[in-house]
Amino acid sequence: MKARVHVMLKTGVLDPQGEAVRHALGQLGFDGVEGVRQGKVIEIDLAESDAGAARETVTRMCETLLANTVIESYSVELV
Amino acid sequence: MKARVHVMLKTGVLDPQGEAVRHALGQLGFDGVEGVRQGKVIEIDLAESDAGAARETVTRMCETLLANTVIESYSVELV
Repeated sequence: MKARVHVMLKTGVLDPQGEAVRHALGQLGFDGVEGVRQGKVIEIDLAESDAGAARETVTRMCETLLANTVIESYSVELV
Repeated sequence: MKARVHVMLKTGVLDPQGEAVRHALGQLGFDGVEGVRQGKVIEIDLAESDAGAARETVTRMCETLLANTVIESYSVELV
């Protein structure tokens, strides 16, 4: 079973990577860009075949390693 | 209109970040992790309201700035 985790900085937390991308897009002539946020996507191949157990495991991975929950939010999607 | 871009290293390209995460998960006692790939997710707020035009613009952004198409693949999703 495959899981995809999105980790984004929470709203209100300064995102310098996103700001850099927004600035660069402006320099390249792309108008109408109102905001950019950049985060991580982590794709995990699991031996687990039960969807509930897989989601529970991946949520624990997020809490312990993948996300800094003070400043980042995460979402888990099974694919 | 909001677009979400996923940028992942192509299959076969070494992914040291993903390998580091896989190793760390093993150290933390998570068994059954068969592979990890890490990529970027970029959320872009656009003034454009036409879906076709927005997708075309974001695809150009990927080709010129967001992805290194030699080693990375990207996908564009309008949300």
